[in-house]
Amino acid sequence: MNTVGMIYKTTIFGSSHGPAVGCVVDGCPAGVAISVDRIQKQLDRRRPGSSDVSSPRKEKDHLIILSGLLEGKATGASITGVVNNKDTESKVYDAFKVVPRPGHADFTATMKYHGFHDHRGGGMFSGRMTIPLVISGSIAMQALESRGIRVAAHSLRIGRIWAKSNPPIPDIERVARKSDVGCADPSVAKLMKAEILDAKREGDSVGGIIECIASGLPVGVGEPFFNSVESVLSHLLYSIPAIKGIEFGAGFQVAEMKGSENNDQFKVRNGKVITETNNSGGVLGGITNGMPIVLRVAVKPTPSIGKTQRSVNLKEMKETDLEIVGRHDPCIVPRAVPVVESVVSTGLLDLMLAGGLF
Amino acid sequence: MNTVGMIYKTTIFGSSHGPAVGCVVDGCPAGVAISVDRIQKQLDRRRPGSSDVSSPRKEKDHLIILSGLLEGKATGASITGVVNNKDTESKVYDAFKVVPRPGHADFTATMKYHGFHDHRGGGMFSGRMTIPLVISGSIAMQALESRGIRVAAHSLRIGRIWAKSNPPIPDIERVARKSDVGCADPSVAKLMKAEILDAKREGDSVGGIIECIASGLPVGVGEPFFNSVESVLSHLLYSIPAIKGIEFGAGFQVAEMKGSENNDQFKVRNGKVITETNNSGGVLGGITNGMPIVLRVAVKPTPSIGKTQRSVNLKEMKETDLEIVGRHDPCIVPRAVPVVESVVSTGLLDLMLAGGLF
Amino acid sequence: MNTVGMIYKTTIFGSSHGPAVGCVVDGCPAGVAISVDRIQKQLDRRRPGSSDVSSPRKEKDHLIILSGLLEGKATGASITGVVNNKDTESKVYDAFKVVPRPGHADFTATMKYHGFHDHRGGGMFSGRMTIPLVISGSIAMQALESRGIRVAAHSLRIGRIWAKSNPPIPDIERVARKSDVGCADPSVAKLMKAEILDAKREGDSVGGIIECIASGLPVGVGEPFFNSVESVLSHLLYSIPAIKGIEFGAGFQVAEMKGSENNDQFKVRNGKVITETNNSGGVLGGITNGMPIVLRVAVKPTPSIGKTQRSVNLKEMKETDLEIVGRHDPCIVPRAVPVVESVVSTGLLDLMLAGGLF
Amino acid sequence: MNTVGMIYKTTIFGSSHGPAVGCVVDGCPAGVAISVDRIQKQLDRRRPGSSDVSSPRKEKDHLIILSGLLEGKATGASITGVVNNKDTESKVYDAFKVVPRPGHADFTATMKYHGFHDHRGGGMFSGRMTIPLVISGSIAMQALESRGIRVAAHSLRIGRIWAKSNPPIPDIERVARKSDVGCADPSVAKLMKAEILDAKREGDSVGGIIECIASGLPVGVGEPFFNSVESVLSHLLYSIPAIKGIEFGAGFQVAEMKGSENNDQFKVRNGKVITETNNSGGVLGGITNGMPIVLRVAVKPTPSIGKTQRSVNLKEMKETDLEIVGRHDPCIVPRAVPVVESVVSTGLLDLMLAGGLF
Repeated sequence: MNTVGMIYKTTIFGSSHGPAVGCVVDGCPAGVAISVDRIQKQLDRRRPGSSDVSSPRKEKDHLIILSGLLEGKATGASITGVVNNKDTESKVYDAFKVVPRPGHADFTATMKYHGFHDHRGGGMFSGRMTIPLVISGSIAMQALESRGIRVAAHSLRIGRIWAKSNPPIPDIERVARKSDVGCADPSVAKLMKAEILDAKREGDSVGGIIECIASGLPVGVGEPFFNSVESVLSHLLYSIPAIKGIEFGAGFQVAEMKGSENNDQFKVRNGKVITETNNSGGVLGGITNGMPIVLRVAVKPTPSIGKTQRSVNLKEMKETDLEIVGRHDPCIVPRAVPVVESVVSTGLLDLMLAGGLF
Repeated sequence: MNTVGMIYKTTIFGSSHGPAVGCVVDGCPAGVAISVDRIQKQLDRRRPGSSDVSSPRKEKDHLIILSGLLEGKATGASITGVVNNKDTESKVYDAFKVVPRPGHADFTATMKYHGFHDHRGGGMFSGRMTIPLVISGSIAMQALESRGIRVAAHSLRIGRIWAKSNPPIPDIERVARKSDVGCADPSVAKLMKAEILDAKREGDSVGGIIECIASGLPVGVGEPFFNSVESVLSHLLYSIPAIKGIEFGAGFQVAEMKGSENNDQFKVRNGKVITETNNSGGVLGGITNGMPIVLRVAVKPTPSIGKTQRSVNLKEMKETDLEIVGRHDPCIVPRAVPVVESVVSTGLLDLMLAGGLF
Repeated sequence: MNTVGMIYKTTIFGSSHGPAVGCVVDGCPAGVAISVDRIQKQLDRRRPGSSDVSSPRKEKDHLIILSGLLEGKATGASITGVVNNKDTESKVYDAFKVVPRPGHADFTATMKYHGFHDHRGGGMFSGRMTIPLVISGSIAMQALESRGIRVAAHSLRIGRIWAKSNPPIPDIERVARKSDVGCADPSVAKLMKAEILDAKREGDSVGGIIECIASGLPVGVGEPFFNSVESVLSHLLYSIPAIKGIEFGAGFQVAEMKGSENNDQFKVRNGKVITETNNSGGVLGGITNGMPIVLRVAVKPTPSIGKTQRSVNLKEMKETDLEIVGRHDPCIVPRAVPVVESVVSTGLLDLMLAGGLF
Repeated sequence: MNTVGMIYKTTIFGSSHGPAVGCVVDGCPAGVAISVDRIQKQLDRRRPGSSDVSSPRKEKDHLIILSGLLEGKATGASITGVVNNKDTESKVYDAFKVVPRPGHADFTATMKYHGFHDHRGGGMFSGRMTIPLVISGSIAMQALESRGIRVAAHSLRIGRIWAKSNPPIPDIERVARKSDVGCADPSVAKLMKAEILDAKREGDSVGGIIECIASGLPVGVGEPFFNSVESVLSHLLYSIPAIKGIEFGAGFQVAEMKGSENNDQFKVRNGKVITETNNSGGVLGGITNGMPIVLRVAVKPTPSIGKTQRSVNLKEMKETDLEIVGRHDPCIVPRAVPVVESVVSTGLLDLMLAGGLF
């Protein structure tokens, strides 16, 4: 099931250590201007090796477009983007087919695919599979921007360090997109970086929370009953490896709120209906109400750590110690920030097209 | 978009005050034994009017099967279940088309459907639309049980009152399914009930958290990349009105965990690979690992409250006070418990069928 | 797989001798005027027992709408239509589970569903399952007519008798819709009727060809590569039991044509680009070119005949004679005419919605 | 809509004169042996320039696999195959955006995509887009062969020349696959070739009929109601450019048959239920009955011809003469033969997987 979407359909392919990763994006309306440079810039933000908080794997991740664009515009045909894999060290992964790494898909993939899956580098479960998500999402983001919609994410929390929730989108675009920890507040960013480097020193890793905001959407986006905004976005967001929680607006805090506190009261400003608060996160009955969409996702600490772990030799069905050597990120939150922006863009464009609102 | 599913497809229809609500369920394998009584029992748990913590709307919610079953077994054709609507008071809802209720879909539906939607009783956004979800889910649950899989949910939190997380499934089945607040611990249930009645007295409402556990699943359920267990279940769960957050396993707590804490170490017990902890919630790389699936959803406080609220007269574009008279639940968490069980069952059966594992 | 469609989705249910047959139709835009009377009129055309060329099974086929319409307009929610089954004689069908009727689905259904299918009256393979197709199609037809599009079918051939191809749509609407053999030419209709009654007298049946024309479509309907007009329409048309061939425009005659004969030359009339001939049947590259869509389907002779046939007792795996007693049509072409109109309408509305052209 | 399939999903991309054409094939079960050489061989059969009955465009059509195979076996991940475009002459096509070629998609594509489509070489409407169909189909064919299923097509008719219908599959594999006109009978092949060369000399083209046979299928393949074998195969077949008719078994001949002639009588041979005749083409009620599937498709004469044609200058809306210079096939039937085999294989594998029969 490597295809997702109603009208704007994304089909992904590839594996970490195969020849390439990429995607085919279908349903982008003919005539929408798409800059390949801008897609490349989002890929560069996702790319490892750019700072000491990420894995030292060095890849240019150079995007090649095989179809669907002509003279800078979508042709109406499917758009194919490919990134070749280069800096791969596959041998180290052979052992994980027999002794699976805790927190990784080694065990479940071996069982599901009877050992025939491409296990090298995590195969199709690798974080590298978020490259196609970024390609699809960057195309969608450009289409959305042509309608005045902006989608921006930032690191809200890394380990014990919290940033302020719901910063203005221009702050995210100006600060967070340049921060090596994806944070919109430079002073908090320093603390987050220290938190990551602490974990790195211990041979350990840390998790975090990413917040994403989408503004400028018209009222009426969302296709109930089953394709509510929350359903479509969470479906896509939970495809990102390492996401373990998703909440919209007040999220889990609604559990402790009274109806009178949680209900967003309507008011009129500049001839438009808006709400005083935004506990709904911009979505009522699964449909956008014109307020910004606000959502947060919990990102687990990278499962690849330097510390010795306990696992099982599947051939002998015996418990054993496991030490993982190789390159890994002490925290993947910063690199996941553009991925979250991307899948939210993909989902919103699809919903707008399905609703006849693009 | 009233259809969901890959192989086990659910199509829902109806509105709160129309002639009926119901669903067509496709893909149930021929020969699976389905008891209509057991579907009815789940519907009865969802039904209002059964205790003083729920709305006094009185409906028998009597299920009629129009197709797909013969002599107590699925025929392989689509199964249709219908519940007629009876106790409806529609007039009161006319006003909400002009002055939308905060926290409800009145505003977004009016904008999206240009006023043509059936607004009576919340129409297709009514909690009554969870009846079809329960029908589909109860059929799925019976299919799953025939393979030794059990799905059970309970009220983990209501307002300020927490129950213990992750109770044994038999406790849920024995205690929570009979509790009028859906709680597996009788002493906590009393406190939860008091919390609800407190809110009721104030003309207010409270939210909560529902936890759902699925045990007995084989390793290998889940269809990456896009149809991971988390993606499919969250897609369905976010269709339930009032859900604002979903987390699996350690959920949002992963943000503060180190990799060494969060990774579930593998071990062998009785010739099976299991994990020492279950922070993953039974899902690795989007695929079941044989441990119980554990998930939690945040339920917002019922938006219909007795207190005066602020809204906007959409015709005159003027702010106005709004008082909602009529019947409503001070807390919908208890009634949502069987709905959560149901959609989790629907999603898991679909994933098993899609993976050739049923 | 009882659901079909991209945006305008039809889900059917029921069986010949179960409680009811019906469908859920999703995606009809809110606000489209839908007359239930007009759906009923199309159902009446499909209904048996109305003349001596059809089966004497007497059913009112009274349509009940359970959802999706309010004050004569689509609400944007899914529309459910149900027809209860009444005049059923089920016992006679028990034997066909053991000794399958040639030309029917008895054998394949028994094998596929391991005997659990509803075999009574042909179950879900019955011609009665075209009732939901007519409901869905009549709704679609009304939506199309609101945009000036007309869809009309007629009996082009019954047995050895041919009518003239491609008559004007008003002739079909005026004459063929009232003819008991579905023919647009009254003098040919008499010959067709005689052909059917001849077969009836012999305890036999005859087949035929139905032609369907759709006019008034804009240029640009059709979603290549895979959802060409021909692909979508043939997918739906081949769902109608008894269809064994489908051709568009010149159809199978293209095999003997030169390119210079088959190519439709472009010209300009009244400021519009049209073609001199219409060998393409209104579709170029899978996309409508503004000329009428013209298609023909081959309908096999009713497999239920009075003559003794050879079959196999599946329990004993022995060959045996089979005599079918019961009610059947000597020719189903006339009753299939409104069904062909219906599924063509369903497919065209779906394509228009998917292409953003409605 | 460049994706098709339920479980075995094919997503195609590319255009005639863009960088490449290709496809992503999802759902091939892990562990199935796939020879890239055999895919290449099918591509070579489709390739032009191999004889004087086809276009002189010279392309190696060398297949590159980007994902999904490891050590000769499917990994369970999506399989991506790409063929780079080389021998392109684009300039000649600029004119067709203004003066569309009769019988081509120039006019409909320009209208649908507002001129933004890639018009060079026919773009995504080019016969070159059948390369991805052959890649997907050759993978499917190898999967089917591992279960003893064989799919084979041949030229039944070219222009006025008919071959014998329904030849033994080994004859097709041995003779037709090596014939430059795709014919299973060498003496008829000579006449067919003469027919094509006659048309070529006149600057004209001829059409034909391709017949395809699939043997070895189990009983029970096909997913009624909407995904009957005929529906799924015709959906795919009508995606092939130039197909204007499709029939199964007796096809259009059923119109003149009596029920007693058309019904295939059941009998027992070697402990298996078979039918005496095969007018149903192996499909009853949309489900395979164990007899060979037999279908025929009508292929129109190549629309690109050397003769002067009449068209319209779309900018000036004036009629004008059109002469097409460039390379084209006087008959595409031979090159379409492996394409028909391919899409039939794709559809059958998908149906087997969806029915849990692979």
